[in-house]
Amino acid sequence: MLTSKIFKKFGKAILLSTLITSSFTFANNALVLQTDFGLKDGAVSAMKGVAFGVSPTLPIYDLTHEVPAYNIWEGAYRLYQTIEYWPKGTVFVSVVDPGVGTDRTSAVLKTKSGHYIVSPDNGTFTLIAERFGIEAIRKIDETKNRLSGSEKSYTFHGRDVYAYTGARLASGEISFEEVGPLLENKIVSIEYQKPSIEGNIAKGTIPILDIQYGNIWTNIDESFLENLNISYGDDVCFTIQQNGNVKYDGKAPYVTSFGEVKEGEPLVYLNSLLQVSIALNVDSFAQKHQIASGADWHIALQKCSE
Amino acid sequence: MLTSKIFKKFGKAILLSTLITSSFTFANNALVLQTDFGLKDGAVSAMKGVAFGVSPTLPIYDLTHEVPAYNIWEGAYRLYQTIEYWPKGTVFVSVVDPGVGTDRTSAVLKTKSGHYIVSPDNGTFTLIAERFGIEAIRKIDETKNRLSGSEKSYTFHGRDVYAYTGARLASGEISFEEVGPLLENKIVSIEYQKPSIEGNIAKGTIPILDIQYGNIWTNIDESFLENLNISYGDDVCFTIQQNGNVKYDGKAPYVTSFGEVKEGEPLVYLNSLLQVSIALNVDSFAQKHQIASGADWHIALQKCSE
Amino acid sequence: MLTSKIFKKFGKAILLSTLITSSFTFANNALVLQTDFGLKDGAVSAMKGVAFGVSPTLPIYDLTHEVPAYNIWEGAYRLYQTIEYWPKGTVFVSVVDPGVGTDRTSAVLKTKSGHYIVSPDNGTFTLIAERFGIEAIRKIDETKNRLSGSEKSYTFHGRDVYAYTGARLASGEISFEEVGPLLENKIVSIEYQKPSIEGNIAKGTIPILDIQYGNIWTNIDESFLENLNISYGDDVCFTIQQNGNVKYDGKAPYVTSFGEVKEGEPLVYLNSLLQVSIALNVDSFAQKHQIASGADWHIALQKCSE
Repeated sequence: MLTSKIFKKFGKAILLSTLITSSFTFANNALVLQTDFGLKDGAVSAMKGVAFGVSPTLPIYDLTHEVPAYNIWEGAYRLYQTIEYWPKGTVFVSVVDPGVGTDRTSAVLKTKSGHYIVSPDNGTFTLIAERFGIEAIRKIDETKNRLSGSEKSYTFHGRDVYAYTGARLASGEISFEEVGPLLENKIVSIEYQKPSIEGNIAKGTIPILDIQYGNIWTNIDESFLENLNISYGDDVCFTIQQNGNVKYDGKAPYVTSFGEVKEGEPLVYLNSLLQVSIALNVDSFAQKHQIASGADWHIALQKCSE
Repeated sequence: MLTSKIFKKFGKAILLSTLITSSFTFANNALVLQTDFGLKDGAVSAMKGVAFGVSPTLPIYDLTHEVPAYNIWEGAYRLYQTIEYWPKGTVFVSVVDPGVGTDRTSAVLKTKSGHYIVSPDNGTFTLIAERFGIEAIRKIDETKNRLSGSEKSYTFHGRDVYAYTGARLASGEISFEEVGPLLENKIVSIEYQKPSIEGNIAKGTIPILDIQYGNIWTNIDESFLENLNISYGDDVCFTIQQNGNVKYDGKAPYVTSFGEVKEGEPLVYLNSLLQVSIALNVDSFAQKHQIASGADWHIALQKCSE
Repeated sequence: MLTSKIFKKFGKAILLSTLITSSFTFANNALVLQTDFGLKDGAVSAMKGVAFGVSPTLPIYDLTHEVPAYNIWEGAYRLYQTIEYWPKGTVFVSVVDPGVGTDRTSAVLKTKSGHYIVSPDNGTFTLIAERFGIEAIRKIDETKNRLSGSEKSYTFHGRDVYAYTGARLASGEISFEEVGPLLENKIVSIEYQKPSIEGNIAKGTIPILDIQYGNIWTNIDESFLENLNISYGDDVCFTIQQNGNVKYDGKAPYVTSFGEVKEGEPLVYLNSLLQVSIALNVDSFAQKHQIASGADWHIALQKCSE
C-alpha cells in the first residue's frame, strides 16, 4: 500500500534505485546447510562456493556437518531441534543421502512455520513435518535447477542440485513455485514410538543424546510431567531399556539447574526443546551408564512414591 | 577523486543518504561466538539463528566451539589468545557455563581495548581482564535482554540470553548502557601461578598446549628471556614438572623457525603471543614426552652454562 | 516516511550516492581459508579477525582446517578438489607450512581459471598448477603486506602475512600487482605417479580417501574407462597395492549410484571430480580392507574378462 503510493509519486527513480540497491546489497533470507560430509575435506566448501556463485551477498550458515554418515534419523532430529530459531523464510539444505543417484525424490518442503527444507525425501522430513506441519512440497525440476555442467556427476547432488537450488530460492532468484511441480503432502516417514501415558507412568524413547555432555534426551514433553503431577523438587523414578533389557534403573530430582545437585549426581531437567532429559552434574550420564539413543532405546518414568 | 567532485555537487544529500543507507545495510561490528558445545548438534546453529533474527546483516563468526566441556580455564585462554586480532567494538559471546541456571551473574565486560565479552562471570573473564584491563562491567538485565518466549528454558542461556544480547549489542540495537546495570569492576578470577624470575631461572606454568601440533606453551613472556640474557642461537635448559614430579629435563636451542633444527629435534621459540614455547620440528613434543597443561604443570628454564 | 521526504528533496543525488555507497560496502570476491590448524583453538579465528579488520564486508569462508598437521600433499589436494566451484576472483589462503620462518617463498599464484591462491610455495601449488595452469606468480612483499606490529612473531605467518594479504587482495584494497614482484612460472612440486594405460590395464594412485565414508578415490579419469571400453553395468577387476604388496584384489560393477548394489557390497563409480572411485554401499571400504592413501598406494584396473 504505502509502497504503491510512493511509487506513483516518484516513479522510475525509485524503481531504478531499488533495483540497483537490491542487486548490490542483500538477500535477507539465510541459507543454512546440514550434511553428513564432515569438515575434513572440500565437499562442504564446494557447496558454499556454488551458493556464493548464485549470490555473493547470500548469508550462508551451517547447522552441522557432523551428522553420522548415512544417519537420516539424526539429520531429521537436528532440523527439528533447530529450524524454529531461524526466521521464517530461511532455507535449509539437508544432505544425508545414502540413496544419491537412485530415484528417491529431491524436494523442497515448506513448513507451516514458513521455513523451507531442501532435501532428498528419504525420511529427513519426518520430524519437522510432524512438528511444524507441511504447507506444500515441490519436486525439484533438475532440468532447470541444477548447476550447469554438472550432468555427468551422479554422486554429488548436495552440491549440484541441493545447494544450487537452495541458494537460488533463498536469494530470491527463483520463487518456491519455480522449484518444480507440486507434490502431494505426503513424505517418506521414519517409524518411531510416540510418547504416551499409561496409568501414572510416562513412556517414550531416547531419540538422541546431548552428545557433547553425555546427557540423555527423551521425546517426553514437559506436559507429561504436569499430567503426572511432577513438580520441581520432586524425585522422578525412571527405567531405561534397550530392546527390553534394563540398562538403568534409578531416581533423580527434577530441577531447574544442574547446580542444584552435587557434582557427579543425577538430575532430571527440561532440555532446550522443553523435553524431559537426564544428566549428571559435570559428568557424562551416557558414558557412565552406557546409554545410547535410537528407536530401540525406551524410557519409562513416574513420580517416586514416598 | 571522483567522490570529492560528486560531494561538492550534492553536498548534504549524499551525507544524509549515506547515513540512511548505511543504517539499512551494515552493522560494522562482528559477533564472535565461543562455546563448549561442539559442532555435532544444532546448538551453535540455534544461537546463530537467534543472532541472525536480531539482524540479518550482522557479521557472525566463531572463535571455537571445541572448548572441552565445562573447562572454563580453556575458554578464558582462548579469549586471551584471540580478541586483540579482532577490531575494537567486536562483541564476543563465550558460553562455558557449568553453572547455567544457578545464580551466577550474566554479564558483559568491556575491556580497555574496546572489546566486549558476553559471558557468565564464572572465571571466563580472568585472563582478558588481566591483560586488557576492565573498562566497565554490566549485568545483563534479562527482563529486557532475553529472547521472547524463552522464559521456560532454564538450560540454554547461551541461545536465549547471551547470543541474543550479544547480537543486539553488536548490531547497535542496544547500547552498552542498555545491557543492564553497572557492576563493580570485580570479576570471579581463577587462581594460577604467575611467571617469575629467581636468580638466573625463569619459572612459569603451562597454561595450554598448541594442541594440533603438540607444542608446549608457557606463560613466560619474551621479556624474561631478555632479562636472563638469552638470545637467538643460545641453548635453553629447562625442566617440566607436574605436581613437583619431573616429567622432562633437557635442553634445546632458542630459534626463530622450526626448520633451524632437524626433524624430530626439540627447539625453544616464541609462539604467536610472544611467549616461550617448546616443540619438536614436525613432531609432537606433548605426545612424545607425555606433557599436558593446567595449573599443576610448571616449567623452569635458564641459559645453559657453557 | 523519512525516506520519501528526503527523496523528494534530493532526487538524483540519492540515486548517485546509492551507487557510490554500494561500491564502498561490498567486496564481491570471497576469501576462503584452509589450514592444518584444526578448530580447537583460536588460530583460525585470529586469521578471520585480521581479515575482518581489513574489510568488515569481505565474505570469509572456509575450505577446511582439518588438513592433517604438516600434510602438504593433502592441502594441495583439497585446493585441487574445490577451487573450481568458487567463482573466478576468489582468493584462497592455504596454510600448511612446516617451514614457517625459514626462507621458503610466500607467494600468490593466479591460475588461468582466474583464482588466486596465497600460500607458502612448498608443494601446495602442485595440483592446481597442473590442473588449472599458472597465469602468474608473485612473491609477497612483506615490507608492505604484513599486519603492522607483527614483526616479532616468526611463527604465525598464516595470520600476519597470508590472511592479511589475502584479505587485502580479495577486498580490492590491493591489486594482484601490489602483492609483490613477479616470479618465474615455476613452483615447488611434489612428485607422484600420473595415471597411465598399459595394454588393457589402467594404472594410477590413491591420492586421497573420501574419509567420511571410507571410499577410495583414484587419480584415474573417466576417459581412461572409455579408452578401456568399460561402460555402466560392466564388472571392473582391480588390484590395490602398497609398496608392491597386494592389499586387495577383487571386482565390482561400474554403476551410477550406490543403491544399485546391496548394502555392504562393493561398487565402482565416478566421484565428484569424475575420477574412478571404489566404495561399499553404506559401509567403509577403507576401514574394512585397511586401505589408506598416498604416493605409495597404487591401483591397477581392467574390464573383467567374461
